[in-house]
Amino acid sequence: MTLADDRAAVATAPAGVPHPRLSLNQATIKYATLDEALAVAAAAGIQSIGLWREPVQAVGLTEAVERVTASGLRVSSLCRGGFFTTSDPVARREALDDNRRALDEAAALGAPALVLVAGGLPEGSRDIVGARARVADALEALAPYALETGVTLAIEPLHPMYAADRAVVSTLGQALDIALHFDERAVGVVVDAFHVWWDPEVMQQIARAAGRIASYQVCDWITPLASDALLSRGMMGDGHIDFGPLTEAVTAAGYTGDVEVEIFNQHIWDSPFDEVVGQTVRRFAATVPL
Amino acid sequence: MTLADDRAAVATAPAGVPHPRLSLNQATIKYATLDEALAVAAAAGIQSIGLWREPVQAVGLTEAVERVTASGLRVSSLCRGGFFTTSDPVARREALDDNRRALDEAAALGAPALVLVAGGLPEGSRDIVGARARVADALEALAPYALETGVTLAIEPLHPMYAADRAVVSTLGQALDIALHFDERAVGVVVDAFHVWWDPEVMQQIARAAGRIASYQVCDWITPLASDALLSRGMMGDGHIDFGPLTEAVTAAGYTGDVEVEIFNQHIWDSPFDEVVGQTVRRFAATVPL
Repeated sequence: MTLADDRAAVATAPAGVPHPRLSLNQATIKYATLDEALAVAAAAGIQSIGLWREPVQAVGLTEAVERVTASGLRVSSLCRGGFFTTSDPVARREALDDNRRALDEAAALGAPALVLVAGGLPEGSRDIVGARARVADALEALAPYALETGVTLAIEPLHPMYAADRAVVSTLGQALDIALHFDERAVGVVVDAFHVWWDPEVMQQIARAAGRIASYQVCDWITPLASDALLSRGMMGDGHIDFGPLTEAVTAAGYTGDVEVEIFNQHIWDSPFDEVVGQTVRRFAATVPL
Repeated sequence: MTLADDRAAVATAPAGVPHPRLSLNQATIKYATLDEALAVAAAAGIQSIGLWREPVQAVGLTEAVERVTASGLRVSSLCRGGFFTTSDPVARREALDDNRRALDEAAALGAPALVLVAGGLPEGSRDIVGARARVADALEALAPYALETGVTLAIEPLHPMYAADRAVVSTLGQALDIALHFDERAVGVVVDAFHVWWDPEVMQQIARAAGRIASYQVCDWITPLASDALLSRGMMGDGHIDFGPLTEAVTAAGYTGDVEVEIFNQHIWDSPFDEVVGQTVRRFAATVPL
Protein backbone atom coordinates (compact mmCIF):
# COMPACT_ATOMS: atom_id res chain seq x y z
CA MET A 1 0.00 0.00 0.00
CA THR A 2 1.41 3.38 -0.95
CA LEU A 3 1.34 6.30 1.46
CA ALA A 4 -1.35 7.94 -0.70
CA ASP A 5 -3.55 4.81 -0.62
CA ASP A 6 -2.91 4.50 3.06
CA ARG A 7 -3.86 8.12 3.72
CA ALA A 8 -7.04 7.70 1.68
CA ALA A 9 -7.95 4.57 3.65
CA VAL A 10 -7.30 6.36 6.93
CA ALA A 11 -9.31 9.40 5.88
CA THR A 12 -12.38 7.37 4.95
CA ALA A 13 -12.27 4.89 7.83
CA PRO A 14 -15.56 4.76 9.74
CA ALA A 15 -15.60 6.13 13.29
CA GLY A 16 -16.96 3.00 14.95
CA VAL A 17 -16.44 2.10 18.58
CA PRO A 18 -13.13 3.30 20.02
CA HIS A 19 -10.61 0.61 20.78
CA PRO A 20 -11.02 -0.31 24.47
CA ARG A 21 -7.32 0.42 25.11
CA LEU A 22 -7.32 3.83 23.43
CA SER A 23 -6.60 6.60 25.92
CA LEU A 24 -6.97 10.28 25.13
CA ASN A 25 -4.06 12.19 26.59
CA GLN A 26 -5.49 15.49 27.69
CA ALA A 27 -2.67 17.44 26.01
CA THR A 28 -4.24 16.53 22.66
CA ILE A 29 -7.09 18.91 23.57
CA LYS A 30 -4.89 21.24 25.57
CA TYR A 31 -7.42 24.04 26.01
CA ALA A 32 -10.11 21.77 27.52
CA THR A 33 -10.80 21.91 31.24
CA LEU A 34 -10.80 18.62 33.13
CA ASP A 35 -14.61 18.48 32.92
CA GLU A 36 -14.61 19.18 29.20
CA ALA A 37 -11.94 16.56 28.57
CA LEU A 38 -13.75 13.89 30.58
CA ALA A 39 -17.05 14.71 28.88
CA VAL A 40 -15.78 14.69 25.31
CA ALA A 41 -13.85 11.46 25.83
CA ALA A 42 -16.79 9.69 27.47
CA ALA A 43 -19.21 10.94 24.81
CA ALA A 44 -17.00 9.38 22.13
CA GLY A 45 -16.98 6.05 23.97
CA ILE A 46 -13.33 6.32 24.96
CA GLN A 47 -12.63 4.40 28.19
CA SER A 48 -9.35 5.94 29.36
CA ILE A 49 -7.70 9.34 29.72
CA GLY A 50 -4.16 10.55 30.36
CA LEU A 51 -4.26 13.52 32.72
CA TRP A 52 -1.96 16.47 33.32
CA ARG A 53 -1.31 17.96 36.72
CA GLU A 54 -2.31 21.54 35.86
CA PRO A 55 -5.97 20.89 34.91
CA VAL A 56 -6.27 18.57 37.91
CA GLN A 57 -4.87 21.24 40.23
CA ALA A 58 -7.22 23.81 38.68
CA VAL A 59 -10.18 22.03 40.31
CA GLY A 60 -8.29 20.57 43.28
CA LEU A 61 -7.25 16.94 43.70
CA THR A 62 -10.23 15.75 45.76
CA GLU A 63 -12.72 17.28 43.38
CA ALA A 64 -10.76 15.92 40.38
CA VAL A 65 -10.85 12.39 41.80
CA GLU A 66 -14.63 12.65 42.22
CA ARG A 67 -15.15 13.90 38.69
CA VAL A 68 -12.92 11.23 37.18
CA THR A 69 -14.77 8.54 39.18
CA ALA A 70 -18.13 9.94 38.05
CA SER A 71 -16.97 9.89 34.40
CA GLY A 72 -16.32 6.15 34.51
CA LEU A 73 -12.99 6.65 32.72
CA ARG A 74 -9.72 4.98 33.68
CA VAL A 75 -6.69 7.22 34.17
CA SER A 76 -3.85 5.79 32.09
CA SER A 77 -1.10 8.09 33.40
CA LEU A 78 -0.43 11.41 35.06
CA CYS A 79 1.84 13.89 33.26
CA ARG A 80 4.26 14.84 34.54
CA GLY A 81 7.08 14.70 36.99
CA GLY A 82 10.81 14.89 36.50
CA PHE A 83 12.84 18.03 35.79
CA PHE A 84 15.53 17.01 38.20
CA THR A 85 18.81 17.82 36.45
CA THR A 86 19.66 20.85 38.58
CA SER A 87 22.84 20.70 40.63
CA ASP A 88 21.56 23.28 43.14
CA PRO A 89 20.77 21.41 46.38
CA VAL A 90 17.75 23.55 47.30
CA ALA A 91 16.17 23.38 43.85
CA ARG A 92 16.90 19.69 43.80
CA ARG A 93 15.11 19.07 47.10
CA GLU A 94 12.13 21.08 45.86
CA ALA A 95 12.04 19.02 42.67
CA LEU A 96 12.07 15.75 44.61
CA ASP A 97 9.31 17.00 46.92
CA ASP A 98 7.24 18.03 43.94
CA ASN A 99 7.69 14.58 42.40
CA ARG A 100 6.50 12.98 45.66
CA ARG A 101 3.39 15.17 45.52
CA ALA A 102 2.88 14.10 41.91
CA LEU A 103 3.08 10.44 42.98
CA ASP A 104 0.40 11.14 45.61
CA GLU A 105 -1.79 12.78 42.99
CA ALA A 106 -1.32 9.88 40.57
CA ALA A 107 -2.21 7.39 43.30
CA ALA A 108 -5.36 9.33 44.25
CA LEU A 109 -6.44 9.45 40.60
CA GLY A 110 -5.79 5.73 40.10
CA ALA A 111 -3.08 6.36 37.50
CA PRO A 112 -0.65 3.44 37.28
CA ALA A 113 2.24 5.65 36.11
CA LEU A 114 3.74 9.10 36.59
CA VAL A 115 5.38 10.21 33.34
CA LEU A 116 8.82 11.76 33.92
CA VAL A 117 10.51 14.32 31.69
CA ALA A 118 14.10 14.36 32.89
CA GLY A 119 14.89 18.03 32.36
CA GLY A 120 17.55 19.61 30.17
CA LEU A 121 21.00 20.99 30.87
CA PRO A 122 20.93 23.33 33.86
CA GLU A 123 21.32 27.00 32.95
CA GLY A 124 24.99 27.74 32.50
CA SER A 125 26.12 24.14 32.10
CA ARG A 126 27.38 22.06 29.20
CA ASP A 127 27.88 18.96 31.36
CA ILE A 128 25.39 16.50 29.90
CA VAL A 129 27.13 13.55 31.53
CA GLY A 130 26.66 15.13 34.96
CA ALA A 131 23.03 16.02 34.26
CA ARG A 132 22.33 12.44 33.23
CA ALA A 133 23.92 11.11 36.41
CA ARG A 134 21.63 13.36 38.48
CA VAL A 135 18.57 11.82 36.79
CA ALA A 136 19.61 8.38 38.02
CA ASP A 137 20.29 9.81 41.50
CA ALA A 138 16.82 11.37 41.63
CA LEU A 139 15.21 8.03 40.78
CA GLU A 140 17.21 6.42 43.56
CA ALA A 141 15.73 9.00 45.93
CA LEU A 142 12.16 8.60 44.64
CA ALA A 143 11.86 4.84 44.04
CA PRO A 144 10.97 3.87 47.64
CA TYR A 145 8.11 6.36 47.67
CA ALA A 146 6.88 5.10 44.30
CA LEU A 147 6.65 1.60 45.78
CA GLU A 148 4.72 3.00 48.75
CA THR A 149 2.20 4.78 46.52
CA GLY A 150 1.90 1.94 44.02
CA VAL A 151 2.62 4.31 41.12
CA THR A 152 5.41 3.54 38.65
CA LEU A 153 7.92 6.29 37.84
CA ALA A 154 7.88 6.16 34.03
CA ILE A 155 11.07 7.57 32.49
CA GLU A 156 10.23 9.05 29.10
CA PRO A 157 13.15 9.28 26.70
CA LEU A 158 12.55 12.41 24.65
CA HIS A 159 13.71 12.89 21.06
CA PRO A 160 17.39 13.94 20.94
CA MET A 161 16.38 17.35 19.57
CA TYR A 162 15.21 18.16 23.11
CA ALA A 163 18.42 17.02 24.85
CA ALA A 164 19.69 20.53 25.64
CA ASP A 165 16.53 22.17 26.89
CA ARG A 166 13.95 19.52 27.86
CA ALA A 167 15.28 16.07 28.62
CA VAL A 168 18.78 14.65 28.81
CA VAL A 169 17.31 11.13 28.59
CA SER A 170 17.41 10.73 24.81
CA THR A 171 17.01 7.06 23.90
CA LEU A 172 15.01 4.09 25.10
CA GLY A 173 18.28 2.25 25.69
CA GLN A 174 19.50 4.99 28.01
CA ALA A 175 16.16 5.05 29.89
CA LEU A 176 16.39 1.28 30.36
CA ASP A 177 19.98 1.51 31.55
CA ILE A 178 18.60 3.64 34.39
CA ALA A 179 15.32 1.79 34.98
CA LEU A 180 16.85 -1.69 35.19
CA HIS A 181 18.56 -0.77 38.47
CA PHE A 182 15.19 -0.63 40.22
CA ASP A 183 12.22 -2.80 41.11
CA GLU A 184 10.00 -2.89 38.01
CA ARG A 185 6.99 -1.74 40.04
CA ALA A 186 8.93 1.40 41.02
CA VAL A 187 10.63 2.46 37.77
CA GLY A 188 9.62 1.81 34.18
CA VAL A 189 9.86 3.52 30.81
CA VAL A 190 7.55 5.28 28.38
CA VAL A 191 7.66 4.25 24.75
CA ASP A 192 6.48 7.29 22.79
CA ALA A 193 6.51 6.61 19.05
CA PHE A 194 7.38 10.22 18.21
CA HIS A 195 10.47 10.17 20.39
CA VAL A 196 11.86 6.74 19.45
CA TRP A 197 10.75 5.87 15.90
CA TRP A 198 14.02 7.02 14.31
CA ASP A 199 16.27 4.91 16.55
CA PRO A 200 18.14 2.17 14.65
CA GLU A 201 18.01 0.12 17.89
CA VAL A 202 14.35 0.72 18.69
CA MET A 203 13.19 -2.86 18.09
CA GLN A 204 15.93 -4.41 20.22
CA GLN A 205 15.35 -1.86 22.97
CA ILE A 206 11.57 -2.42 23.03
CA ALA A 207 12.24 -6.14 23.39
CA ARG A 208 14.69 -5.37 26.20
CA ALA A 209 11.96 -3.28 27.87
CA ALA A 210 9.77 -6.34 28.50
CA GLY A 211 8.11 -5.90 31.89
CA ARG A 212 9.27 -2.28 32.06
CA ILE A 213 6.89 -0.50 29.67
CA ALA A 214 4.76 1.71 31.90
CA SER A 215 3.15 3.64 29.05
CA TYR A 216 2.92 3.50 25.25
CA GLN A 217 2.08 6.75 23.47
CA VAL A 218 1.44 7.44 19.80
CA CYS A 219 1.43 10.46 17.52
CA ASP A 220 3.11 11.09 14.18
CA TRP A 221 6.35 12.77 13.06
CA ILE A 222 5.40 15.42 10.54
CA THR A 223 7.64 17.40 8.22
CA PRO A 224 8.59 20.12 7.94
CA LEU A 225 9.04 20.42 11.69
CA ALA A 226 6.89 23.10 13.33
CA SER A 227 8.75 26.38 13.88
CA ASP A 228 8.34 25.66 17.60
CA ALA A 229 9.98 22.24 17.84
CA LEU A 230 7.77 21.32 20.81
CA LEU A 231 4.67 21.48 18.60
CA SER A 232 5.85 19.12 15.85
CA ARG A 233 3.68 16.20 16.89
CA GLY A 234 1.00 15.24 14.38
CA MET A 235 -2.11 13.06 14.10
CA MET A 236 -1.34 9.42 13.28
CA GLY A 237 -1.38 8.99 9.50
CA ASP A 238 -0.24 12.55 8.73
CA GLY A 239 3.46 11.79 9.01
CA HIS A 240 6.27 9.31 8.56
CA ILE A 241 5.90 6.79 11.39
CA ASP A 242 4.92 3.19 10.71
CA PHE A 243 3.00 2.33 13.89
CA GLY A 244 2.61 -1.32 12.88
CA PRO A 245 6.04 -2.71 13.74
CA LEU A 246 6.39 -0.47 16.82
CA THR A 247 3.02 -1.52 18.21
CA GLU A 248 3.68 -5.19 17.51
CA ALA A 249 7.01 -4.94 19.30
CA VAL A 250 5.39 -3.27 22.32
CA THR A 251 2.75 -6.02 22.41
CA ALA A 252 5.42 -8.70 22.06
CA ALA A 253 7.19 -7.12 25.04
CA GLY A 254 4.10 -7.92 27.09
CA TYR A 255 2.49 -4.49 27.34
CA THR A 256 -1.28 -4.77 27.87
CA GLY A 257 -2.05 -1.29 29.20
CA ASP A 258 -3.78 1.67 27.60
CA VAL A 259 -2.27 3.38 24.56
CA GLU A 260 -2.30 7.16 24.77
CA VAL A 261 -2.69 9.55 21.88
CA GLU A 262 -0.71 12.62 22.90
CA ILE A 263 -0.40 15.39 20.32
CA PHE A 264 1.06 18.87 20.78
CA ASN A 265 0.01 20.67 17.61
CA GLN A 266 -1.33 24.20 17.31
CA HIS A 267 -3.74 23.37 14.49
CA ILE A 268 -5.22 20.48 16.46
CA TRP A 269 -5.40 22.61 19.61
CA ASP A 270 -7.33 25.23 17.64
CA SER A 271 -9.91 22.66 16.43
CA PRO A 272 -13.18 21.79 18.24
CA PHE A 273 -12.60 19.17 20.94
CA ASP A 274 -15.18 16.71 19.59
CA GLU A 275 -13.74 16.86 16.07
CA VAL A 276 -10.25 16.12 17.41
CA VAL A 277 -11.52 13.22 19.49
CA GLY A 278 -13.51 11.79 16.56
CA GLN A 279 -10.45 11.97 14.33
CA THR A 280 -8.31 10.44 17.07
CA VAL A 281 -10.66 7.43 17.31
CA ARG A 282 -10.67 6.89 13.53
CA ARG A 283 -6.94 7.34 13.00
CA PHE A 284 -6.09 5.14 15.97
CA ALA A 285 -8.22 2.32 14.55
CA ALA A 286 -6.62 2.69 11.12
CA THR A 287 -2.97 2.98 12.16
CA VAL A 288 -2.36 1.25 15.51
CA PRO A 289 -2.72 -2.55 15.25
CA LEU A 290 -3.74 -3.72 18.72
CA MET B 1 34.25 27.90 34.73
CA THR B 2 30.61 28.94 34.30
CA LEU B 3 29.06 29.29 30.88
CA ALA B 4 29.02 33.08 31.35
CA ASP B 5 32.76 33.15 32.20
CA ASP B 6 33.43 30.84 29.33
CA ARG B 7 31.49 33.01 26.90
CA ALA B 8 33.34 36.09 28.13
CA ALA B 9 36.69 34.34 27.68
CA VAL B 10 35.72 33.23 24.19
CA ALA B 11 34.50 36.70 23.23
CA THR B 12 37.71 38.41 24.27
CA ALA B 13 40.17 35.80 22.97
CA PRO B 14 42.75 37.31 20.62
CA ALA B 15 42.56 36.37 16.96
CA GLY B 16 46.12 35.09 16.64
CA VAL B 17 47.30 32.58 14.08
CA PRO B 18 44.66 30.04 13.04
CA HIS B 19 45.24 26.50 14.21
CA PRO B 20 47.03 24.67 11.37
CA ARG B 21 44.32 21.99 11.34
CA LEU B 22 41.40 24.44 11.22
CA SER B 23 39.46 24.08 7.98
CA LEU B 24 36.77 26.52 6.89
CA ASN B 25 33.85 24.62 5.43
CA GLN B 26 32.56 26.78 2.63
CA ALA B 27 28.95 26.41 3.82
CA THR B 28 29.84 28.66 6.76
CA ILE B 29 30.08 31.51 4.23
CA LYS B 30 27.42 30.11 1.97
CA TYR B 31 27.04 33.15 -0.28
CA ALA B 32 30.76 33.35 -1.15
CA THR B 33 31.96 32.22 -4.57
CA LEU B 34 34.82 29.75 -4.69
CA ASP B 35 37.27 32.61 -5.31
CA GLU B 36 35.90 34.67 -2.44
CA ALA B 37 36.01 31.70 -0.09
CA LEU B 38 39.60 30.83 -1.00
CA ALA B 39 40.68 34.45 -0.69
CA VAL B 40 39.08 35.14 2.68
CA ALA B 41 40.38 31.87 4.15
CA ALA B 42 43.92 32.46 2.88
CA ALA B 43 43.89 36.08 4.04
CA ALA B 44 43.06 34.90 7.57
CA GLY B 45 45.94 32.44 7.52
CA ILE B 46 43.68 29.39 7.40
CA GLN B 47 45.40 26.46 5.66
CA SER B 48 42.47 24.24 4.69
CA ILE B 49 38.99 24.49 3.21
CA GLY B 50 35.98 22.16 2.91
CA LEU B 51 34.40 22.59 -0.51
CA TRP B 52 30.89 22.05 -1.83
CA ARG B 53 30.15 20.74 -5.29
CA GLU B 54 27.93 23.62 -6.43
CA PRO B 55 30.50 26.47 -6.16
CA VAL B 56 33.10 24.17 -7.73
CA GLN B 57 30.77 23.37 -10.62
CA ALA B 58 29.99 27.08 -11.02
CA VAL B 59 33.54 27.67 -12.28
CA GLY B 60 34.11 24.18 -13.71
CA LEU B 61 36.25 21.45 -12.18
CA THR B 62 39.49 22.14 -14.09
CA GLU B 63 39.38 25.83 -13.29
CA ALA B 64 38.46 25.09 -9.66
CA VAL B 65 41.47 22.79 -9.30
CA GLU B 66 43.75 25.53 -10.64
CA ARG B 67 42.34 28.14 -8.30
CA VAL B 68 42.59 25.87 -5.26
CA THR B 69 46.18 25.03 -6.17
CA ALA B 70 46.99 28.71 -6.61
CA SER B 71 45.48 29.51 -3.19
CA GLY B 72 47.86 27.15 -1.42
CA LEU B 73 44.99 25.74 0.66
CA ARG B 74 44.38 22.06 1.34
CA VAL B 75 40.92 20.68 0.59
CA SER B 76 39.72 18.81 3.69
CA SER B 77 36.60 17.31 2.13
CA LEU B 78 34.08 17.66 -0.66
CA CYS B 79 30.40 18.01 0.27
CA ARG B 80 28.47 16.07 -0.71
CA GLY B 81 27.37 12.78 -2.10
CA GLY B 82 24.78 10.33 -0.92
CA PHE B 83 21.00 10.68 -1.27
CA PHE B 84 20.63 7.06 -2.23
CA THR B 85 17.56 5.83 -0.38
CA THR B 86 15.27 5.68 -3.41
CA SER B 87 13.85 2.30 -4.37
CA ASP B 88 13.30 3.35 -7.99
CA PRO B 89 15.95 1.55 -10.11
CA VAL B 90 16.46 4.41 -12.57
CA ALA B 91 16.78 7.09 -9.89
CA ARG B 92 19.07 4.77 -7.98
CA ARG B 93 21.41 4.29 -10.96
CA GLU B 94 21.49 8.06 -11.47
CA ALA B 95 22.34 8.60 -7.80
CA LEU B 96 25.20 6.08 -7.97
CA ASP B 97 26.54 7.69 -11.17
CA ASP B 98 26.39 11.11 -9.56
CA ASN B 99 28.32 9.78 -6.56
CA ARG B 100 31.01 8.41 -8.89
CA ARG B 101 31.30 11.86 -10.49
CA ALA B 102 31.58 13.37 -7.00
CA LEU B 103 34.42 10.94 -6.20
CA ASP B 104 36.18 12.07 -9.41
CA GLU B 105 35.75 15.70 -8.41
CA ALA B 106 37.05 15.05 -4.89
CA ALA B 107 40.09 13.25 -6.30
CA ALA B 108 40.84 16.08 -8.72
CA LEU B 109 40.60 18.63 -5.89
CA GLY B 110 42.83 16.56 -3.62
CA ALA B 111 40.07 16.04 -1.05
CA PRO B 112 40.66 12.92 1.04
CA ALA B 113 36.93 12.38 1.70
CA LEU B 114 33.54 12.73 0.05
CA VAL B 115 30.93 13.54 2.71
CA LEU B 116 27.76 11.47 2.27
CA VAL B 117 24.29 12.48 3.41
CA ALA B 118 22.27 9.29 3.18
CA GLY B 119 18.92 10.73 2.15
CA GLY B 120 15.58 10.52 3.90
CA LEU B 121 12.55 8.29 3.47
CA PRO B 122 11.55 8.12 -0.19
CA GLU B 123 8.36 10.05 -1.00
CA GLY B 124 5.40 7.87 -0.12
CA SER B 125 7.28 5.45 2.13
CA ARG B 126 7.37 4.85 5.87
CA ASP B 127 9.85 1.97 5.55
CA ILE B 128 12.91 3.31 7.38
CA VAL B 129 14.39 -0.19 7.71
CA GLY B 130 14.30 -0.63 3.94
CA ALA B 131 15.74 2.82 3.32
CA ARG B 132 18.60 2.07 5.68
CA ALA B 133 19.33 -1.21 3.92
CA ARG B 134 19.58 0.62 0.58
CA VAL B 135 22.24 2.92 2.03
CA ALA B 136 24.42 -0.10 2.80
CA ASP B 137 23.73 -1.50 -0.69
CA ALA B 138 24.78 1.78 -2.31
CA LEU B 139 28.08 1.76 -0.43
CA GLU B 140 28.67 -1.80 -1.61
CA ALA B 141 28.22 -0.52 -5.18
CA LEU B 142 30.47 2.53 -4.70
CA ALA B 143 33.29 1.20 -2.52
CA PRO B 144 35.40 -0.26 -5.37
CA TYR B 145 35.38 3.08 -7.20
CA ALA B 146 36.29 4.91 -4.01
CA LEU B 147 39.40 2.70 -3.74
CA GLU B 148 40.25 3.46 -7.38
CA THR B 149 40.00 7.21 -6.88
CA GLY B 150 41.73 7.20 -3.47
CA VAL B 151 38.86 9.15 -1.91
CA THR B 152 37.10 7.85 1.22
CA LEU B 153 33.29 7.69 1.22
CA ALA B 154 32.53 9.38 4.54
CA ILE B 155 29.13 8.41 5.96
CA GLU B 156 27.77 11.30 7.99
CA PRO B 157 25.22 10.36 10.63
CA LEU B 158 22.80 13.28 10.81
CA HIS B 159 20.89 14.29 13.93
CA PRO B 160 17.77 12.11 14.41
CA MET B 161 15.56 15.15 13.78
CA TYR B 162 16.51 14.79 10.11
CA ALA B 163 15.73 11.06 9.86
CA ALA B 164 12.51 11.46 7.87
CA ASP B 165 13.56 14.03 5.32
CA ARG B 166 17.38 14.21 5.10
CA ALA B 167 19.28 11.20 6.33
CA VAL B 168 18.19 7.81 7.63
CA VAL B 169 21.66 7.31 9.10
CA SER B 170 21.02 8.77 12.55
CA THR B 171 23.80 7.69 14.92
CA LEU B 172 27.54 7.19 14.80
CA GLY B 173 26.98 3.58 15.88
CA GLN B 174 24.71 2.95 12.92
CA ALA B 175 27.20 4.60 10.52
CA LEU B 176 29.97 2.38 11.89
CA ASP B 177 27.82 -0.73 11.59
CA ILE B 178 27.76 0.02 7.85
CA ALA B 179 31.32 1.29 7.44
CA LEU B 180 32.98 -1.64 9.21
CA HIS B 181 31.98 -3.96 6.37
CA PHE B 182 34.40 -2.18 4.04
CA ASP B 183 38.09 -1.43 3.57
CA GLU B 184 38.82 1.59 5.77
CA ARG B 185 40.33 3.46 2.80
CA ALA B 186 37.00 3.10 0.97
CA VAL B 187 34.41 3.83 3.65
CA GLY B 188 34.71 5.91 6.81
CA VAL B 189 32.51 8.11 8.97
CA VAL B 190 32.10 11.80 9.71
CA VAL B 191 31.96 12.89 13.34
CA ASP B 192 29.99 16.14 13.36
CA ALA B 193 29.63 17.50 16.89
CA PHE B 194 26.21 19.01 16.15
CA HIS B 195 24.81 15.68 15.01
CA VAL B 196 26.26 13.41 17.71
CA TRP B 197 26.81 15.45 20.90
CA TRP B 198 23.52 14.30 22.49
CA ASP B 199 24.19 10.56 22.06
CA PRO B 200 24.60 8.71 25.37
CA GLU B 201 26.95 6.34 23.51
CA VAL B 202 29.00 8.97 21.69
CA MET B 203 32.24 8.36 23.58
CA GLN B 204 32.15 4.59 23.09
CA GLN B 205 31.27 5.01 19.43
CA ILE B 206 34.06 7.52 18.77
CA ALA B 207 36.49 5.04 20.33
CA ARG B 208 35.03 2.30 18.12
CA ALA B 209 35.55 4.60 15.11
CA ALA B 210 39.35 4.45 15.46
CA GLY B 211 40.84 4.33 11.97
CA ARG B 212 37.46 5.17 10.41
CA ILE B 213 37.10 8.88 11.11
CA ALA B 214 37.30 10.53 7.70
CA SER B 215 36.22 13.97 8.88
CA TYR B 216 35.61 15.82 12.16
CA GLN B 217 33.32 18.83 11.99
CA VAL B 218 32.37 21.33 14.68
CA CYS B 219 29.61 23.86 15.26
CA ASP B 220 27.32 24.46 18.22
CA TRP B 221 23.78 23.36 19.17
CA ILE B 222 21.84 26.52 19.89
CA THR B 223 18.42 26.87 21.50
CA PRO B 224 15.73 27.62 20.72
CA LEU B 225 16.09 25.72 17.46
CA ALA B 226 15.83 27.86 14.34
CA SER B 227 12.35 27.83 12.79
CA ASP B 228 13.99 26.10 9.82
CA ALA B 229 15.55 23.09 11.55
CA LEU B 230 18.31 22.93 8.91
CA LEU B 231 19.63 26.32 10.03
CA SER B 232 20.01 25.56 13.75
CA ARG B 233 23.79 25.27 13.71
CA GLY B 234 25.63 27.95 15.68
CA MET B 235 29.12 29.32 16.19
CA MET B 236 31.17 27.36 18.75
CA GLY B 237 30.64 28.90 22.18
CA ASP B 238 27.11 30.15 21.47
CA GLY B 239 25.39 26.90 22.43
CA HIS B 240 25.38 23.81 24.59
CA ILE B 241 28.12 21.56 23.23
CA ASP B 242 31.25 20.85 25.25
CA PHE B 243 33.83 20.39 22.48
CA GLY B 244 36.56 19.38 24.91
CA PRO B 245 35.62 15.74 25.60
CA LEU B 246 34.45 15.17 22.01
CA THR B 247 37.67 16.53 20.53
CA GLU B 248 39.82 14.58 22.96
CA ALA B 249 37.95 11.40 22.07
CA VAL B 250 38.42 12.03 18.35
CA THR B 251 42.14 12.61 18.93
CA ALA B 252 42.38 9.47 21.07
CA ALA B 253 40.76 7.56 18.19
CA GLY B 254 43.77 8.54 16.08
CA TYR B 255 42.30 11.29 13.93
CA THR B 256 44.98 13.70 12.75
CA GLY B 257 43.19 15.36 9.84
CA ASP B 258 41.72 18.82 9.44
CA VAL B 259 38.81 19.92 11.62
CA GLU B 260 36.07 21.68 9.69
CA VAL B 261 33.89 24.47 10.99
CA GLU B 262 30.59 24.02 9.16
CA ILE B 263 27.74 26.34 10.19
CA PHE B 264 24.34 26.73 8.54
CA ASN B 265 22.95 29.84 10.17
CA GLN B 266 21.09 32.70 8.51
CA HIS B 267 22.58 35.39 10.75
CA ILE B 268 26.10 34.16 10.05
CA TRP B 269 25.38 33.88 6.33
CA ASP B 270 24.17 37.49 6.36
CA SER B 271 27.43 38.72 7.98
CA PRO B 272 30.55 39.90 6.08
CA PHE B 273 32.76 36.95 5.11
CA ASP B 274 35.88 38.29 6.79
CA GLU B 275 34.08 38.90 10.08
CA VAL B 276 32.73 35.35 10.07
CA VAL B 277 36.16 33.94 9.32
CA GLY B 278 37.80 36.04 12.04
CA GLN B 279 35.24 34.89 14.58
CA THR B 280 35.66 31.29 13.41
CA VAL B 281 39.41 31.46 14.05
CA ARG B 282 38.96 32.95 17.54
CA ARG B 283 36.17 30.64 18.64
CA PHE B 284 37.95 27.57 17.30
CA ALA B 285 41.05 28.45 19.32
CA ALA B 286 38.97 29.00 22.46
CA THR B 287 36.71 25.95 22.28
CA VAL B 288 38.38 23.12 20.34
CA PRO B 289 41.36 21.65 22.22
CA LEU B 290 43.68 20.24 19.55
